Amino acid sequence: MSADQAKSSGRFVPSRRQFLIGGAVAGVGAAAAVGADLVLNRSSSPEAAAALNGAEIVPFYGRHQAGIADAAQAHATFIALDLLPETDRDALRRLMSILTGDAARLTQGVKALADSEPELAVVPARLTVTFGFGPEFVSRAGGNAPTWLRPLPPFSIDKLDPAFTDGDLLLQIAADDPLTVAHATRMLLKDTRSFATVRWTQAGFRRAYGSERPGTTMRNLFGQVDGTTNAQPGTEEFDRIVWAERGWLAGGTSLVLRRIRMDLDKWDRLDRGGREQSVGRTLANGAPLTGTDEFDEPDFEAKTSIGFPVIPEFSHVRRSRPDDERQRIFRRGYNYDERPAGESVSESGLLFASFQADVDAQFVPIQQRLADLDLLNEWTTPIGSAVFAVPPGCSEGGYIGETLLG
Amino acid sequence: MSADQAKSSGRFVPSRRQFLIGGAVAGVGAAAAVGADLVLNRSSSPEAAAALNGAEIVPFYGRHQAGIADAAQAHATFIALDLLPETDRDALRRLMSILTGDAARLTQGVKALADSEPELAVVPARLTVTFGFGPEFVSRAGGNAPTWLRPLPPFSIDKLDPAFTDGDLLLQIAADDPLTVAHATRMLLKDTRSFATVRWTQAGFRRAYGSERPGTTMRNLFGQVDGTTNAQPGTEEFDRIVWAERGWLAGGTSLVLRRIRMDLDKWDRLDRGGREQSVGRTLANGAPLTGTDEFDEPDFEAKTSIGFPVIPEFSHVRRSRPDDERQRIFRRGYNYDERPAGESVSESGLLFASFQADVDAQFVPIQQRLADLDLLNEWTTPIGSAVFAVPPGCSEGGYIGETLLG
Ligand code: HEM
Ligand code: HEM
Repeated sequence: MSADQAKSSGRFVPSRRQFLIGGAVAGVGAAAAVGADLVLNRSSSPEAAAALNGAEIVPFYGRHQAGIADAAQAHATFIALDLLPETDRDALRRLMSILTGDAARLTQGVKALADSEPELAVVPARLTVTFGFGPEFVSRAGGNAPTWLRPLPPFSIDKLDPAFTDGDLLLQIAADDPLTVAHATRMLLKDTRSFATVRWTQAGFRRAYGSERPGTTMRNLFGQVDGTTNAQPGTEEFDRIVWAERGWLAGGTSLVLRRIRMDLDKWDRLDRGGREQSVGRTLANGAPLTGTDEFDEPDFEAKTSIGFPVIPEFSHVRRSRPDDERQRIFRRGYNYDERPAGESVSESGLLFASFQADVDAQFVPIQQRLADLDLLNEWTTPIGSAVFAVPPGCSEGGYIGETLLG
Repeated sequence: MSADQAKSSGRFVPSRRQFLIGGAVAGVGAAAAVGADLVLNRSSSPEAAAALNGAEIVPFYGRHQAGIADAAQAHATFIALDLLPETDRDALRRLMSILTGDAARLTQGVKALADSEPELAVVPARLTVTFGFGPEFVSRAGGNAPTWLRPLPPFSIDKLDPAFTDGDLLLQIAADDPLTVAHATRMLLKDTRSFATVRWTQAGFRRAYGSERPGTTMRNLFGQVDGTTNAQPGTEEFDRIVWAERGWLAGGTSLVLRRIRMDLDKWDRLDRGGREQSVGRTLANGAPLTGTDEFDEPDFEAKTSIGFPVIPEFSHVRRSRPDDERQRIFRRGYNYDERPAGESVSESGLLFASFQADVDAQFVPIQQRLADLDLLNEWTTPIGSAVFAVPPGCSEGGYIGETLLG
């Protein structure tokens, strides 16, 4: 398959299509071509192939890693690894080369190098694999760590469980198919076996691909429309918020992953009015309490007839919206819902994933403001927290992390 | 929406469509109509609506419960409840009425009666809810328990964990959308709160809806095509295997749920030839080792040039295939893949779910034969086991369990 065909056959989100057209066509190399062919040829007719979401591919190679600007897939598994004591700089280079190779293959629907279940590799379903480096990784690599690459400052609302906190190397593995995620996870973890151990695994979900019209903002388990005010991938605004510009991280970004428990039982005891006040938006369609459409601008000055602000002072939307234009983040989170323990009927929440060029300048001030005061805190508790430097992408023949380890 | 419209707009699997046409149209009542309307009207164009899998509905009412003959959805959560000591026959009747009402609503895309997040209810995505009764349930109901309604006899291969074993009331909640399953699970569990506690929850998955062509046999985490030899819903053979005929269970069936751990690490050490021998089918497409197509009949007489059977004596296919035509089961299982503990890189396996009219006559002899000898036992371990009587369906105004409790 030629790069031109790749361009016309794939249904990528605008930002990545632009990217492909924009000159990085070299990034779509042999592995991609083989994978797409393999997948497309499995269907008896081109129409059938086009209709099968399983065959959809997100390019792996490029200036940025995939899985950030791409429309969020239905399933994501975040895994943090702890490096073994003997994993030195050379070993890190080997590790990242192996991981890059297999991630490049699997995301294109091609089996991993030592794939033990190759038949499970042929349904990419928009699989992306995104790597992030913790402080220990960068230190062993001998690189300059950005100042923000450290655990977040402690917040008064935190009840952090070490089981969901920190880590040396992050894998974000996301696809629209749960079996694809399971297989890719296993193949990539096998690659890491002699270099690292699993510190934690966190799995999340959104609505299935095809459940709703593409572009519908996700809902979280409180039933809220979650993600309305978020930069659009492909825009200058997005690029400014997300991509770092200096040193080995140029073209990369940072990921803050907060595991935030949502107390659904307590939330249930709050009436609809109270719920809408706590955020400042309606439950029906996510419109600000001063508007009717989801994307209406909130009017923070509007007052009720008796003089109270329509959007409460302590509401989440008011508290999380920065006065300072530089304090912006890109949210790409997932719901989690696990087997409840004991009396509770649910153990649920948000894998709050936020990408930004600079954690200290962009994320921390918002989180600090929310920790100081946010009505939502009554029903939410951060129980995990991790910060990673997300290196830029690479082109074929290269590997993720080469700007740090090369 | 009229019943006719319901018939023409839904893309049900043949068996249930036949059923609808076959005279039980009364089963598609008010709740169903409201639900479908609500969902279909959310899309701007009829074409868009048709393309959205989220709007697809499986009828709730009918002679049989849904979720058995319907094409397996991408996600399923199985939940077993223990009845509280004070939950007597009257309470069971109340419980099943409440559950039936909410299951009927939610499966049609209508919010539950006391739905705390109604906005999460509008994407049915082929949601089905299937109820099963354990021995204690039937005994408190004062009913005649089928002789097979008890824990399975112990098998030499079993390493059962009480955390995945037995239970008084089963809910099988399945849909193509994980958020739909999460919401329905929570709403239904809330209904049970004053009657029962959660004993265990087991979540499983298959390929996403739309990943592969409909009708593709699922693959398990060993990479095997799993489900080839299985009766087709809508056939006489299926009806004979699955549906019970006597007493309060007429039109019902039984569910055996075995949680079977699959040791993927050990499986990895086996070569491809060995893997194919252990089952008697190829990994590439699930064809018997004596054939080329998935649905070719295995030739158990065929011998290799040096006189060994091509399909080994101890292979899973040979051991699980009954000589006795009455020993047949209908398999509708799911993969599971959970956060691994400790050194292991995976905690994976099969939620082996099997429906049959009579557990003792159909399931037990097969399981006994496999326990006695089956090459697959080398890599698989049953770690949970539960048996439920699955009552028939009901029509609108009735409730699941009425033939036992009414
Ligand atoms: C479980 C915890 C949380 C829930 C349920 C939640 C929910 C929401 C909802 C419903 C909105 C309004 C719709 C939208 O624009 O997306 C929102 C907006 C927002 N949230 Fe959160 N959120 C949570 C945690 C956080 C955290 C930890 C941060 C950052 C530290 C954050 C930052 C934001 C921002 C920046 C906005 C957009 C504000 C604006 O309109 O400019 N949220 N969140
Ligand atoms: C993790 C455990 C298991 C795995 C991985 C597994 C896998 C398979 C595979 C790959 C096949 C061949 C394809 C097919 O016809 O579906 C098969 C067939 C079958 N299995 Fe299993 N199986 C497991 C456990 C069981 C159990 C516990 C039972 C029943 C007690 C069972 C009963 C059957 C039957 C009846 C067939 C069809 C045999 C025929 O060709 O007539 N399996 N299984």
